[in-house]
Amino acid sequence: MDVHSAAALSAGIAAGLAALGASLANGNVISRTVEGISRQPEAKGSLQSTMFIGVGLIEALPLLAWVLGLLLYLK
Amino acid sequence: MDVHSAAALSAGIAAGLAALGASLANGNVISRTVEGISRQPEAKGSLQSTMFIGVGLIEALPLLAWVLGLLLYLK
Amino acid sequence: MDVHSAAALSAGIAAGLAALGASLANGNVISRTVEGISRQPEAKGSLQSTMFIGVGLIEALPLLAWVLGLLLYLK
Amino acid sequence: MDVHSAAALSAGIAAGLAALGASLANGNVISRTVEGISRQPEAKGSLQSTMFIGVGLIEALPLLAWVLGLLLYLK
Amino acid sequence: MDVHSAAALSAGIAAGLAALGASLANGNVISRTVEGISRQPEAKGSLQSTMFIGVGLIEALPLLAWVLGLLLYLK
Amino acid sequence: MDVHSAAALSAGIAAGLAALGASLANGNVISRTVEGISRQPEAKGSLQSTMFIGVGLIEALPLLAWVLGLLLYLK
Amino acid sequence: MDVHSAAALSAGIAAGLAALGASLANGNVISRTVEGISRQPEAKGSLQSTMFIGVGLIEALPLLAWVLGLLLYLK
Amino acid sequence: MDVHSAAALSAGIAAGLAALGASLANGNVISRTVEGISRQPEAKGSLQSTMFIGVGLIEALPLLAWVLGLLLYLK
Amino acid sequence: MDVHSAAALSAGIAAGLAALGASLANGNVISRTVEGISRQPEAKGSLQSTMFIGVGLIEALPLLAWVLGLLLYLK
Amino acid sequence: MDVHSAAALSAGIAAGLAALGASLANGNVISRTVEGISRQPEAKGSLQSTMFIGVGLIEALPLLAWVLGLLLYLK
Amino acid sequence: MDVHSAAALSAGIAAGLAALGASLANGNVISRTVEGISRQPEAKGSLQSTMFIGVGLIEALPLLAWVLGLLLYLK
Amino acid sequence: MDVHSAAALSAGIAAGLAALGASLANGNVISRTVEGISRQPEAKGSLQSTMFIGVGLIEALPLLAWVLGLLLYLK
Amino acid sequence: MDVHSAAALSAGIAAGLAALGASLANGNVISRTVEGISRQPEAKGSLQSTMFIGVGLIEALPLLAWVLGLLLYLK
Amino acid sequence: MDVHSAAALSAGIAAGLAALGASLANGNVISRTVEGISRQPEAKGSLQSTMFIGVGLIEALPLLAWVLGLLLYLK
Repeated sequence: MDVHSAAALSAGIAAGLAALGASLANGNVISRTVEGISRQPEAKGSLQSTMFIGVGLIEALPLLAWVLGLLLYLK
Repeated sequence: MDVHSAAALSAGIAAGLAALGASLANGNVISRTVEGISRQPEAKGSLQSTMFIGVGLIEALPLLAWVLGLLLYLK
Repeated sequence: MDVHSAAALSAGIAAGLAALGASLANGNVISRTVEGISRQPEAKGSLQSTMFIGVGLIEALPLLAWVLGLLLYLK
Repeated sequence: MDVHSAAALSAGIAAGLAALGASLANGNVISRTVEGISRQPEAKGSLQSTMFIGVGLIEALPLLAWVLGLLLYLK
Repeated sequence: MDVHSAAALSAGIAAGLAALGASLANGNVISRTVEGISRQPEAKGSLQSTMFIGVGLIEALPLLAWVLGLLLYLK
Repeated sequence: MDVHSAAALSAGIAAGLAALGASLANGNVISRTVEGISRQPEAKGSLQSTMFIGVGLIEALPLLAWVLGLLLYLK
Repeated sequence: MDVHSAAALSAGIAAGLAALGASLANGNVISRTVEGISRQPEAKGSLQSTMFIGVGLIEALPLLAWVLGLLLYLK
Repeated sequence: MDVHSAAALSAGIAAGLAALGASLANGNVISRTVEGISRQPEAKGSLQSTMFIGVGLIEALPLLAWVLGLLLYLK
Repeated sequence: MDVHSAAALSAGIAAGLAALGASLANGNVISRTVEGISRQPEAKGSLQSTMFIGVGLIEALPLLAWVLGLLLYLK
Repeated sequence: MDVHSAAALSAGIAAGLAALGASLANGNVISRTVEGISRQPEAKGSLQSTMFIGVGLIEALPLLAWVLGLLLYLK
Repeated sequence: MDVHSAAALSAGIAAGLAALGASLANGNVISRTVEGISRQPEAKGSLQSTMFIGVGLIEALPLLAWVLGLLLYLK
Repeated sequence: MDVHSAAALSAGIAAGLAALGASLANGNVISRTVEGISRQPEAKGSLQSTMFIGVGLIEALPLLAWVLGLLLYLK
Repeated sequence: MDVHSAAALSAGIAAGLAALGASLANGNVISRTVEGISRQPEAKGSLQSTMFIGVGLIEALPLLAWVLGLLLYLK
Repeated sequence: MDVHSAAALSAGIAAGLAALGASLANGNVISRTVEGISRQPEAKGSLQSTMFIGVGLIEALPLLAWVLGLLLYLK
């Protein structure tokens, strides 16, 4: 297996694992937010703002991995 | 294995993992929303709006992985 | 392994994982809907409408993965 | 591995994963329906109609994957 | 690996996964039915009729996968 | 790997997975039946008849897979 | 790998998976029976008779798989 | 891999899986028996007799798999 | 891979799986016994005797697998 | 496989596992924070500050692994 | 792979699986013992004696597997 | 596979597993801390100090593994 | 793969699995001890002494496996 | 694969598994300690001292495995 093949294969693995992890984590956070709003509708604002910050923090590292996958793709 | 084969194989893995992760996360969020509406029908509006935002946030990274898979396919 | 073989193999993996994820997520949402109707039969309308929207949102990305699988098949 | 072998192998994987996912999701939905009828026999009609719609929605994507498997078989 | 070997191997995988999924789903539905009859013996008729419909719906896609396995065997 | 080897290997996989699935599903149904009889001894007849029907329905598809395994063995 | 090697390897896999599945299912049924007798000692007779029938039904398909394994061994 | 190597390798797999399944199932049954005696010491006799019968029934198929492993060893 | 290598490799797999299964099953039984003594110290005698019988029954088949592993080692 | 291919493949594995771990851990922490705010809205400040510190501590080692992956990519 | 290599590789697998199984089983037993002493400090003696016997019984078969690993190492 | 390739591949595995383990452990500790602060806001100081010590202790061994991965990278 | 390579590879597997098992078992025992002290601070002495004995017993077999790994390394 | 490559690959596996196990075990112990302090703030001293001893005991064997990995690296 030469280096371009390995880079192409590696790009798919990195992007796939990153998307899998980010999706599951986001789904966990957002479903808890929905559950919290369903219990206390008056706390909707502070829960959603925490949710937005949390989703942003979660997607930091998977985005870096996706960038690395893109770099591997361009190699 | 030459580079085109690896890219084609990698495209399938990335798209498959992304679809798997996004589906499970969406299913988690939406089932919680359905459960919340079933408990408090009057909070239907704010729960559904949170659900739409959440599904949009979840599908961001898997869509990027799918785009990378498409790029690998076109290679 | 030449490129056509890898594309054919990759098409099956992508379609299989997408179908697996979409089925499980749909099953999760619909079973919660059935449970909700069983508890509060009067909320049947709003639960079913949320269910239809949810199933549509869930099947977006797996459908894209299936399309990519079809593209790989046609390669 | 030439392209016909890969297509034949891929057809089995796609059909198997699709059947696995659809069976488990259908089993989840139907068992919840049976449980719901067992609790509230008077809601039998609306539960069964939701069940039929749900099973139809679940089997959409696995059927597409099976069709792709059949296309790969005919290749 | 030539095409006949791959088809034979693929037939076993498809049939095995389909049988595994259908068995587990059927077992889930029927055990819930038995549990429901054990709780409310007077609802035996409607539970069993739902069970028969459910088993028929579950076995649709695994049967298709088995047919595809048979086609692969005959190749 | 020639076609007879692949068929022989495939026969074992199909029969093994079918036996694994059918055993676990049967064990699930029968243990629920035993639990139901232990709770309501007077419902023994209707529980056992449902159990017999259920076991017959469960073993349909694994038996088909076993038949396919036997056909692969005879190839 | 010639056909005799594949048959020998396949025999072990089929017999091993069949023994694994049958053991776990039998253990599930019998432990529930022991639990039921521990709760209601007067129902010992009907629980044990159901247990014997259940064990016989469970071991049907694994025995068939074992027979197929023996046939593969004798090949 | 010639046939004797495959038979030797297959013998270990069959014996190992059979021992794994039988141990776990026996451990399940016996621990429930210990738990039952701990709750109702007066039912010790009937619980132990059921345990002995159950262990005998569980070890039937793993023993057959072990015999097949021994036959494969002697090949 | 010649036959002596396969036998040596198979011996390790069989002994390892047997030790894994027997350890977990013994740990399950003994921990339940400790729990039972902790609840009812006066039943210590009958619980320990059942434990000794159970451990003996559990270790029967793993010991047979270990013997088969030893035979494979001596081959 | 030469050294550049191995480095490219290794970069993807390291980045993917790091993104997977960091996402799941962040999702766990943030969902607990959302749950805590939903219960005690007055503790929002101290919970969010702990969350920010925690996310920073969690992402330390995955970031190091990502850097190592980048170094491997540049090799 | 010649016979000495296979024996060396097999020794590691057997010893590793044996150590993994024995550790988990011992941890299960001892943690239950600690829990039991924490609930009833006056039963410390009989719990510890049962714990010592149990650990001895658990480590019998893994020790045999380790001995087989040592024999394979010395081969 | 020559030694440099193996070292590069090994570096990624070590760093990835270390990051995965450290992230999950940190996420477990910090989420418990957030939960504890949410229950008892007055214990914020002592919980956070324990959290900082714990995170430091957890990251000791993964950091060592990361260093070993770096050494393997520099090889 | 010659014998020295297999021994080196086997050493890592044995040491890794032994460390994994011993860590998890120790973590299980010690966390239960911490929980017990948190409930009954007056039983600290007898819980800690049991913990020390337990940790010693747990680490016996993994240490033997580590020694075997060291022997394999020195081969 | 020559001996240096195997040693390098083995070093990464051993260090990675050791770091994974130690992290998870430490996370388990420390999170229980945090939970205990959150319930009984007055027992902070004795819980932390037990935690420090426990972390030291847990990290003994993974450190030995890391040393073995380092020895394999230096080979």
